Amino acid sequence: MKIVLAQQNYHIGNFSKNTTKIIEAIKKAKSNHADLIVFSEMSICGYPARDFLDFKDFIDKCYASIETIKEHADTIGVIVGAPDRNLRPEGKDLFNAAFFLYEKKVIGVAHKTCLPTYDIFDEYRYFEPAFNWKIISFKGKKIALTICEDIWNLGDNPLYRICPMDELMKQSPDLMINISASPFDYTHDEDRKATVKTNVLKYKLPLIYCNSVGSQTEIIFDGASLVFDKESNLICQMPQFQEAMETLLLNADGTFDAPVIELANALPAKLSTPENFIPELNISQVYEAIILGIKDYFQKMGFSKAILGSSGGIDSAVSIALACEALGKENVFAVLMPSAFSSGHSVLDAEQLSKTLGNSYHKIPIHDIYQSFLSSLKPLFNELPFNVAEENLQARTRGALLMGIANKFGYILLNTSNKSELAVGYGTLYGDMAGGLSLLGDCYKLQVYELAKFINCKREIIPKSIINKAPSAELSPGQKDSDSLPPYPTLDQILYQYIERVQGPSEIKAKGYDSDLVDRILKMVNKNEYKRNQFCPIIRVSPKAFGVGRRLPIVGSYLS
Amino acid sequence: MKIVLAQQNYHIGNFSKNTTKIIEAIKKAKSNHADLIVFSEMSICGYPARDFLDFKDFIDKCYASIETIKEHADTIGVIVGAPDRNLRPEGKDLFNAAFFLYEKKVIGVAHKTCLPTYDIFDEYRYFEPAFNWKIISFKGKKIALTICEDIWNLGDNPLYRICPMDELMKQSPDLMINISASPFDYTHDEDRKATVKTNVLKYKLPLIYCNSVGSQTEIIFDGASLVFDKESNLICQMPQFQEAMETLLLNADGTFDAPVIELANALPAKLSTPENFIPELNISQVYEAIILGIKDYFQKMGFSKAILGSSGGIDSAVSIALACEALGKENVFAVLMPSAFSSGHSVLDAEQLSKTLGNSYHKIPIHDIYQSFLSSLKPLFNELPFNVAEENLQARTRGALLMGIANKFGYILLNTSNKSELAVGYGTLYGDMAGGLSLLGDCYKLQVYELAKFINCKREIIPKSIINKAPSAELSPGQKDSDSLPPYPTLDQILYQYIERVQGPSEIKAKGYDSDLVDRILKMVNKNEYKRNQFCPIIRVSPKAFGVGRRLPIVGSYLS
Repeated sequence: MKIVLAQQNYHIGNFSKNTTKIIEAIKKAKSNHADLIVFSEMSICGYPARDFLDFKDFIDKCYASIETIKEHADTIGVIVGAPDRNLRPEGKDLFNAAFFLYEKKVIGVAHKTCLPTYDIFDEYRYFEPAFNWKIISFKGKKIALTICEDIWNLGDNPLYRICPMDELMKQSPDLMINISASPFDYTHDEDRKATVKTNVLKYKLPLIYCNSVGSQTEIIFDGASLVFDKESNLICQMPQFQEAMETLLLNADGTFDAPVIELANALPAKLSTPENFIPELNISQVYEAIILGIKDYFQKMGFSKAILGSSGGIDSAVSIALACEALGKENVFAVLMPSAFSSGHSVLDAEQLSKTLGNSYHKIPIHDIYQSFLSSLKPLFNELPFNVAEENLQARTRGALLMGIANKFGYILLNTSNKSELAVGYGTLYGDMAGGLSLLGDCYKLQVYELAKFINCKREIIPKSIINKAPSAELSPGQKDSDSLPPYPTLDQILYQYIERVQGPSEIKAKGYDSDLVDRILKMVNKNEYKRNQFCPIIRVSPKAFGVGRRLPIVGSYLS
Repeated sequence: MKIVLAQQNYHIGNFSKNTTKIIEAIKKAKSNHADLIVFSEMSICGYPARDFLDFKDFIDKCYASIETIKEHADTIGVIVGAPDRNLRPEGKDLFNAAFFLYEKKVIGVAHKTCLPTYDIFDEYRYFEPAFNWKIISFKGKKIALTICEDIWNLGDNPLYRICPMDELMKQSPDLMINISASPFDYTHDEDRKATVKTNVLKYKLPLIYCNSVGSQTEIIFDGASLVFDKESNLICQMPQFQEAMETLLLNADGTFDAPVIELANALPAKLSTPENFIPELNISQVYEAIILGIKDYFQKMGFSKAILGSSGGIDSAVSIALACEALGKENVFAVLMPSAFSSGHSVLDAEQLSKTLGNSYHKIPIHDIYQSFLSSLKPLFNELPFNVAEENLQARTRGALLMGIANKFGYILLNTSNKSELAVGYGTLYGDMAGGLSLLGDCYKLQVYELAKFINCKREIIPKSIINKAPSAELSPGQKDSDSLPPYPTLDQILYQYIERVQGPSEIKAKGYDSDLVDRILKMVNKNEYKRNQFCPIIRVSPKAFGVGRRLPIVGSYLS
């Protein structure tokens, strides 16, 4: 049986584009005499469609797309993902479904059983778990068709009460197919390989695993679809971060007519979230994920040009380099906005960066506008001492300038804040926290340095002086981050324990960190939830990013 | 049996405050010789605690609070709500539980079965549904103890497969007790009464329903706890929007030693979401909900003073009046920031408003700052025509001024945007969309006028000229909202159909609205998701508010 995996990038709600893309792949597979083509989870409408799923019209359009695609599933079997209405009286109104199309008919529908409802996932918000499990017979093969999380309910402490593959095994299938929309983080590639292989070892059946690719606002789907034979040999591993199609010949005995790919270990260790923060972990994947995140955001939003503030610091330098790589240097506009507190080398470094990258840039000193704010506020501020109010006015002047240019020329403002400063609230709402998309908001400061090293690995794009200087917001005379924050190696480790590892104060202190420091940092994190709540989407690269996957009360009094 | 209902306002994660409040109520009930005191859902930690529930430390603190409270549950039974660990290997790690304390022991624990995971609710993110159901025997009574949504799974199309009261009825209980954290919206009071009564009619048992009160960031819990006797007579209806305690004597025959309260109808009609938008629907409740929302936000965040922009328009006028009512006029600072495009009467109206209310105000013309922005941008903007970029610069100048004053003096900026303009994106990010809390973001423009009428019902607080003038953003010469938006009565109806009623384009057009207009409005709503995504929390008064209860993709292509 000739089986094609179509690892595609969908646009949520763009039915005509998604349907066309699916039909083109079917035509290609048919011209190659394939028996079956497999698309990923929710390929019809894109994933996650969120509350669009509440609209009858949206679901109708999903069915209409399946009708259109069905006509092309004549001599070839087609597996696509879409919502399916729950016709029983009880339970939620929809299932998360895989439709098996053949001979212009729907010959089987599988409903997802394990509905992830944690981190970025909200599936129980929309879907009812499957009521029953049926293998689908196709060209003499009995296929156990499951959806994403359905094959992740393993181990001694399973998250769900029912394991759908256990149910399907009662009907003696020959082959497992799983369609997924499984998002990237820097631990996930290994984790996924381990999980898929564990299923093969458990059920002793070949497994075809087709994942989607592409960025959906903040969530990056990285593809990396997999095929294992029944002997648990890895037969196919599709590329990360790009669309691809792969054809495989499945023999009658459950082997594949393809060479075995050597895995580094017999069974890759489940990486999960490392116990301690490793800034350089899979940094090339993190880089590629951010590039894809930028590209897709602009393309799917219908924009081409970006604007960024360029301070001469490491965060803006890395952000501008990433934007140039993703969008092309001709589409990136950097704005230098020095103040009286900016050091001379900051401006020179920022200019050098854009000269090296070749993107256009422009300098607007903020002195006059800032003074104008101060004069207007003088009757109220009187002789009160300079404090955070004046610092923020500088940042907000920059934010307003960047947004003004963006509005005038139709650019998107890209935000350059990193995860460390977002965590502790070291940023100005409507100032340096402005922007439509955050590139580095899921990278701690130490990871930003690793990205800089990675960007510079072939030639010096980011000036060494930017990498070597002490971090500073340059909002008051001689200011350094270290004046008000602990050193980043300490700060990042403590933040990682709290955010990614979900450790409480006593557990973090037990790791040897200073008790007062831990309390102070956790308090800063919790007190600044109100700021992050108004922040733009952050390209997600870690197992726990700020934003849709981390939901904390703003008004609370826990550790704060 | 003497039973006390304690309708209290909790602070999420503030264990010492919540525990003290609970113990004080127990002491009061004991001094009154009560047999049993009932607190609301998650009374120990506050609801919704969201991802705080992921921290072992947080759950440990919940158990520790129960230990403390248990010592006071000696001669009196005490029902409190808290998370409970799931000790089985399968399923989520927690239950949403009701703990029954008596004789300094936990004599029973009920787990919630129906876990709301829609709109603002995320319970399946944290909790496993109950595995089993047991009545609790207490002083000769068999009590069926359930939690909130557990008694809402009624009708022909139930949301959940299991109805916990049906399970409990197999053990022949004498009394139903339900502890809730059931939030307010302008349809909910009647809806709740109908649902509680339907349970009494179905099971023919008395029902004690104890709801929490108080605002948790954007969500308002309105209390209004209820008691019905087994004949489905309403015996007790506690006040809305305030803490209260009520003592009832339950007779052995399931009647109460209290007068019956007449209901307007035998069974209040389920109000649900009306088919068409009714701006004046329960407007006094909406008013009270917003007042409570402001009060609690400030008190729980530890602030006392608010700043607001005062434009002379209806939205800021209503907002300032609400803030003065909630916080006291001495805690409200209004800032008038006229530009060249502001009409003279706007400034006069804004001044008159604050003179009537008695709150302090200050005028800062924005001309100089705005010109300073224009001069600095001149090299880039050249001779390009005035457009949205310049409009937004004015709004952002105002935003920066307000935030500067807020930062200097420790005020919270209250946002004055209404739901109609948030829906269509008629607002400036970091400009008039700035602020820490939105007062009117869940009120359509027509509801804002109703609020103005309500505020003016005793004396003219909001000048008539503000109510009567045509709405305008005053960002360009002679600008009126009606230049770019349809008339509000039409706009609000269409928005209501799309947002609250979740109707698609064809359904809305079928109601007689112009097809192009419907398409245009829905497109505006969907295109501006990116703006709302960065907006502050909105005090929720409708069945479908922007924010945590409405989750749409930013990068999507549906109706946009």
